[in-house]
Amino acid sequence: MEAAILAVGSELLGSTHVDTNSLTIANALERYGVRVKRKAVVGDESAEIGAELEFALASVDVVIVTGGLGPTDDDVTRKAVADALGLQLVFDQSVLDDIETKFRIRNLEMPPVNKRQAMVFVGHKLVRNPRGTAPGFHLNLGAGGKAKHVWLFPGVPWELDGMIANDLEPWLQKLQPELMHRRVIKLTGLSESAVEEALAPYYKRHPEKLMVLAARGEIHVHLLAEGEADEAYPRLTEMEQHIRELFGDRVFGLDHETLESTVGRLLASRGETVATAESCTGGLLGSRITDVSGSSVYFLGGAVAYSQQAKLFLLGIDPATIEKYGEVSEQVAREMAEGARRRFGTTYGVGITGIAGPTGGTAQKPVGTVHVAVAGRSTRRHKRFLFAGSRELVKHYSTQVALDMLRLIIVRHGGGARDSGLGAGESGRS
Amino acid sequence: MEAAILAVGSELLGSTHVDTNSLTIANALERYGVRVKRKAVVGDESAEIGAELEFALASVDVVIVTGGLGPTDDDVTRKAVADALGLQLVFDQSVLDDIETKFRIRNLEMPPVNKRQAMVFVGHKLVRNPRGTAPGFHLNLGAGGKAKHVWLFPGVPWELDGMIANDLEPWLQKLQPELMHRRVIKLTGLSESAVEEALAPYYKRHPEKLMVLAARGEIHVHLLAEGEADEAYPRLTEMEQHIRELFGDRVFGLDHETLESTVGRLLASRGETVATAESCTGGLLGSRITDVSGSSVYFLGGAVAYSQQAKLFLLGIDPATIEKYGEVSEQVAREMAEGARRRFGTTYGVGITGIAGPTGGTAQKPVGTVHVAVAGRSTRRHKRFLFAGSRELVKHYSTQVALDMLRLIIVRHGGGARDSGLGAGESGRS
Repeated sequence: MEAAILAVGSELLGSTHVDTNSLTIANALERYGVRVKRKAVVGDESAEIGAELEFALASVDVVIVTGGLGPTDDDVTRKAVADALGLQLVFDQSVLDDIETKFRIRNLEMPPVNKRQAMVFVGHKLVRNPRGTAPGFHLNLGAGGKAKHVWLFPGVPWELDGMIANDLEPWLQKLQPELMHRRVIKLTGLSESAVEEALAPYYKRHPEKLMVLAARGEIHVHLLAEGEADEAYPRLTEMEQHIRELFGDRVFGLDHETLESTVGRLLASRGETVATAESCTGGLLGSRITDVSGSSVYFLGGAVAYSQQAKLFLLGIDPATIEKYGEVSEQVAREMAEGARRRFGTTYGVGITGIAGPTGGTAQKPVGTVHVAVAGRSTRRHKRFLFAGSRELVKHYSTQVALDMLRLIIVRHGGGARDSGLGAGESGRS
Repeated sequence: MEAAILAVGSELLGSTHVDTNSLTIANALERYGVRVKRKAVVGDESAEIGAELEFALASVDVVIVTGGLGPTDDDVTRKAVADALGLQLVFDQSVLDDIETKFRIRNLEMPPVNKRQAMVFVGHKLVRNPRGTAPGFHLNLGAGGKAKHVWLFPGVPWELDGMIANDLEPWLQKLQPELMHRRVIKLTGLSESAVEEALAPYYKRHPEKLMVLAARGEIHVHLLAEGEADEAYPRLTEMEQHIRELFGDRVFGLDHETLESTVGRLLASRGETVATAESCTGGLLGSRITDVSGSSVYFLGGAVAYSQQAKLFLLGIDPATIEKYGEVSEQVAREMAEGARRRFGTTYGVGITGIAGPTGGTAQKPVGTVHVAVAGRSTRRHKRFLFAGSRELVKHYSTQVALDMLRLIIVRHGGGARDSGLGAGESGRS
């Protein structure tokens, strides 16, 4: 079974808004094994809506349309769909009564324009909208095995969500009892092509069960399994195990986990703490760490040492180090990490110094040069990076690698106290 | 002139990723008065790409395609487009040499699969990609006034951005001398409905010239004017003037300006500086301030005082103040702002303390309670807020109001040194 999604709304064709309703719809369709074949966006114009609907129906079984069911002149979806499919619209007093009641409950008078929302498709199902005034519709076209379906929903996300759960999902479940289960394995520190290459033998055998997506310094491997939960879950776990064997501790989390939530979980479970010392990232690392609810248990704080002066008084960096190596250097990053750890009295300190650009680079230290250091009780790490991209991207990548270095120290060396023999001698290696 | 945008990529049909490249493309098209008639997303499948391309070309003059130009088996856009339009692809050694050079510069060996990216359309223009390996293409179909155009770009946003600026925009400019000029007036501290109500008389007369969009604590009024720059600009300036009269210093910037870049411009022009003291925002305020290139001139640094201990030793907060009023209080916010100003020796200090949620609230201090204080040489301000929304939104809104309070102090009181008579007595007022 295949589907197309159509979002109606002129504002979705501009440079400021994207259609995000399609994500909610795709999520429901995916869960019941319905493949989304295409998505489209058209403006509030009858001809465009009709043309796309006919085009999509020629190749898929179900089209889900959102938007354009409101009460104003702009809202032409009902009429456009009726015209394109040769269906009849008729006024329904009981629907209008229902809309009027909704206004009355909120002590509002119903504007006369809302009458438009009481026009229904003759011979087709109305879909109730408990969260708003515009009802949706389920049009069953043709009959038997060849039937095609069109669903019309309002574009307001909160209303749409409710109607998907109440009406679309139960219909999908009846139609398509084969559920689709998904597990996302998240990796970092590897290139997309390295992950694809390692997965290739398996991937080639089961392309329908695996999808590799890369974004902003992470690789997400989506695993899919059809069937009832008690059959699908063991298969997903087996695939997950296989991937963990291939990539070891490059796997940092599953599903909704983030790098910062994983680091938080590791720290909290060990009763360990961290503090940050940031220069070029300006506080972004601290902000990401504190995006996790409950982070106050393990994050004590940070110093944003943007100026040279601040590096000295906040973190106790030796002025001679800056003099000799410059503010963007391995030595300063290491002293920042140590300084944060010492000043805040934490298990770990993380230091970041670099050139986010777009200006400020030199031949020796080009834009995108970033030094990251992590200090534990006895384990110390430093790495130099050269990132390409905008200022915003360089900042993001810097925090990404900093979180990952911290994560790997915890995972591989078991933290400060439990650190076994990997002393200062190790510090220069990585 | 009308356009369609097509994004190719199976990952864009799922429940996790939306096509955001179309926003950048729509932005370029809008600037040159080209109307976007439809957008579509299809998977990495030749038949789908070909069908959508033919469908779109039947009704628009130019189709912009992104994605599917990579080196792997998944990347079928080149071949699909050639097949659909009856064009020929041929291997080009000079393109391959260029790709090999790009790998060599990064000390990498070019994988053999990248050869695929050296296939070019016979008789059509190649579009250089200075930021990546996959070149784009400009296909000029038909001739004269009836010509139709297809542009192919890679899907990597950073690469696409560069090619739009270098190639698509100059082409649009030559083609379409009737520019559409846009000016965006940005406001904060007002509700969307308040802005719409104030603009209503004008809006009703000229709906085609005005658009009001609200997002994340800001209202953007888009002004539009057609024609040559020397005619359109004075009209835009007149409209801008009208809006500035209506809203005064609630207007914080134009076009690409952000609240943080406006604050930066104000500080830099006065030779003044700022430091931050953040608790619940965890460094986000510092990160936003340093998103502006050149911010090191006026931003000296910040203290992320997430723990109580950090508030004491980093900012010199009086333990008695915390004891008496609690960490989330007006008094602590004020001492944090003062502490930042004193420790960093800046003109201004900004302090934020609050409860970002979703847990940690009490009846007296519910989730979303945030205290923001700004300290100048003699002007001091404090405000208490109660924000609704996710943890991420509460953090964002907190930095938004902090930046705006700092901005208004600078604008209204002319900074510390120039402050005229508005002393400590003023501090309790707002």
